[in-house]
Amino acid sequence: VRFQEWGEDNFIQHLADRFAVQGSVVGIGDDCAVIPLSSKESWLVTTDALVERVHFLREQIAPQDLGYKALAVNVSDIAAMGGQPKYVFLSLALPKTLEAAWACEFLEGLESACRKWGVQLLGGDTVGSHSDLFINLTLIGAAETANIRYRYQAKVGDHICVTGHLGEAGAGFKVLQAGLLRKGDRDLLCRAHQRPEPSPEQGSWLARQAGVHAMMDLSDGLACDLKRLLKSSKKGAQIEIERLPISDQLARVCAENGWDPLQQALTGGEDYCLLVTLAAEACAELQRAFQQKFGGQLFDIGTITEVWGKLVYLKQGKEVEVPYAAFNHFG
Amino acid sequence: VRFQEWGEDNFIQHLADRFAVQGSVVGIGDDCAVIPLSSKESWLVTTDALVERVHFLREQIAPQDLGYKALAVNVSDIAAMGGQPKYVFLSLALPKTLEAAWACEFLEGLESACRKWGVQLLGGDTVGSHSDLFINLTLIGAAETANIRYRYQAKVGDHICVTGHLGEAGAGFKVLQAGLLRKGDRDLLCRAHQRPEPSPEQGSWLARQAGVHAMMDLSDGLACDLKRLLKSSKKGAQIEIERLPISDQLARVCAENGWDPLQQALTGGEDYCLLVTLAAEACAELQRAFQQKFGGQLFDIGTITEVWGKLVYLKQGKEVEVPYAAFNHFG
Repeated sequence: VRFQEWGEDNFIQHLADRFAVQGSVVGIGDDCAVIPLSSKESWLVTTDALVERVHFLREQIAPQDLGYKALAVNVSDIAAMGGQPKYVFLSLALPKTLEAAWACEFLEGLESACRKWGVQLLGGDTVGSHSDLFINLTLIGAAETANIRYRYQAKVGDHICVTGHLGEAGAGFKVLQAGLLRKGDRDLLCRAHQRPEPSPEQGSWLARQAGVHAMMDLSDGLACDLKRLLKSSKKGAQIEIERLPISDQLARVCAENGWDPLQQALTGGEDYCLLVTLAAEACAELQRAFQQKFGGQLFDIGTITEVWGKLVYLKQGKEVEVPYAAFNHFG
Repeated sequence: VRFQEWGEDNFIQHLADRFAVQGSVVGIGDDCAVIPLSSKESWLVTTDALVERVHFLREQIAPQDLGYKALAVNVSDIAAMGGQPKYVFLSLALPKTLEAAWACEFLEGLESACRKWGVQLLGGDTVGSHSDLFINLTLIGAAETANIRYRYQAKVGDHICVTGHLGEAGAGFKVLQAGLLRKGDRDLLCRAHQRPEPSPEQGSWLARQAGVHAMMDLSDGLACDLKRLLKSSKKGAQIEIERLPISDQLARVCAENGWDPLQQALTGGEDYCLLVTLAAEACAELQRAFQQKFGGQLFDIGTITEVWGKLVYLKQGKEVEVPYAAFNHFG
C-alpha cells in the first residue's frame, strides 16, 4: 500500500494506536496535545509542516506571507482548544540555491505574526535540502486546564456554529492557481488564503463559556473537519446548507467563474476559523454576547444528532446528496 | 547570496538577532531553549530536521534505524544541558509513492527509542511530499533549573573533556557510502552511525557536579562544535591531538582504507557524546567518579585559554596546523 491510498487520517490512527499515552497528558487526536503543569494551567503543543508544491508554490506566495501563514495555522490550533500561543520553534530545510533574501523575507513575515500574537521564537533547526523547501513549526501555548475544549465534547441537540465565512481561502487559492487578475473580490479571497486570521481571543472567550461544548479549528474544510469532530464525539449531525455562511464576495467570484459556492464552502479548506457546538439553550445568548464582544457572528449551521458518523445535509428541510470528496493531503 | 555560501551558523546568528527573547526564557544559541516553570524546574525544548539525500540515503539506512536515530539526536541535545527527555512531536513529509510499510518500520524504530529513553510521542503532522522525505522532531525535556549547563560557562584553565570515542559515526558513514563490506570493525562504526547512544544519565549526573562548567553535545564534529562553545564562552582553547580518544577499531579501519584518523576524529560528526569543561582542580576526581558510575571514560583532551576564538592544536607540545574544513550542512 502506498501513502496516497492510505491517507492521512488512517496514518494518524495508526500513530495514535501505536503511541498510546499514559498519565494525565493528552496525545494524538485533537488540535493540540495537552500537558498539565498543574490543576490550573496546562500547556498545549501543536506542530504543522508546510511543503513546497504540496501546501504552497514559491512563485505564488510572497515569502513574507508564507512566514506569516506558517505561524497563523499553528495559532489556529492553539485557539481551537482555548489557549494563548507563547513559544515557537522553527525548522527550515532550504534548497542550497535559494537566495538568502528569500529567507530573510520569510522571517520578516514570521516576525510580524509573532508580534501580532505575542509569540516568542525560541529555537529551531536550519538545514539544506536538495529539492523542495520544507517548513515546520512547533508552537507551545498555555491554557486554563479546566477550560480546555476538545473535539469529543459534542452532545446530542447541540447547535453547530462557525465563527467566520467559509470557503474564501480555498477560492483564493483557486484564483491564484488559475492566474486570474487579483483585484476587488478576488483580492479579498487571495488575502484570506495568504493571511489567515485565527483568533485566540475568540477561542479563549468561547472556552470560558459553560454553554460551549466541543471546539476545533477548520483547516481542511467543514465537510472533512466536521467528520473528525463527529468521530471524536461519537455523534452525527445535520447541516442546513442554506445557513452556511457564504460571503457576497465568494458568491460573486464563484458566479463569475462557474464555481459552486457550496462546494467551496464545504471543501475549500484553510478557513482557520472555529467550529463549535453549543448547548441549545445557551445558543442565542452566546451568539448575542459573541457579536457584542467581537463584532463578528457565530453562524448557526446545524445540530448534533445521535447516530454516530451520520452526517446529513438538509436543503429546505429535505436531505440532499453532497458528493464532494473531502480534502485529502495525499490526493 | 545563496544559502550554500551563507552557511548555517550565519543564518542562526541572523535568527538570534532578529528574534531576541524577553523575560526569563533562553532562546537561540544553545542545544535547547530553556523555559523556566519555577525556580526549581525548567523545560528544555529542541528540534531537529532530517532531510533525505542531505542527512540520510533511504537505500542506506533501515527505516527502523532512522526512526531510532531521529529521536536519539534530539535526546542528545536534552542530555547536553542536563535534562531528561519527556515528550516528542513528529512531523513527517512523505513522498506519495512511499510504501506504507516503510513508515510503519520507521515508527517501530522511533517507538523503541521512545521506550529506551522514557519518551512519550504526543502529536505531530503528516503530510505529502513531491520528492524527498523530510522528518522533524521536537523534543521537550525537564531539568532542574539550577543545574542546567550552557555552552557559555567555560572558564580559563578548565580541562576540556569528551565522554566517548570520536569519529566512529563519521567513519561508519564513509564505510556505507563507499559500499564496503559491513563486518567486524566496520560494522561497529556503521552501528555508531545508525544507532547513536546519547546518555541523559551522564548529562544529568555531570550537570549536578559543581566542577562541571560548560556542556554541549558533539553533533557536527569536535572541530566545529568546540568553536561554537568557545564563541559562546568568549574563550580560546588548546587541544592535544595525541589525547583525542580514537578507538582501535577506528584506527584499524582508517589504516585499511588510507583515511586520516585525526581528520575523522575532528570532523567526522554525529558523535552524540558530550563535550564538557571541568574546573582544573575537580577534573581528576570527576574522571574517577564518572568511570566508577558509568564504566566509560571522561577523556581529557585539552584546556580552555583566554584569547577569544583562538583554537590551537598541539602535538608533543608544539602547535600544528589542522587544515580540515569544518562540517557544513550546506556544503
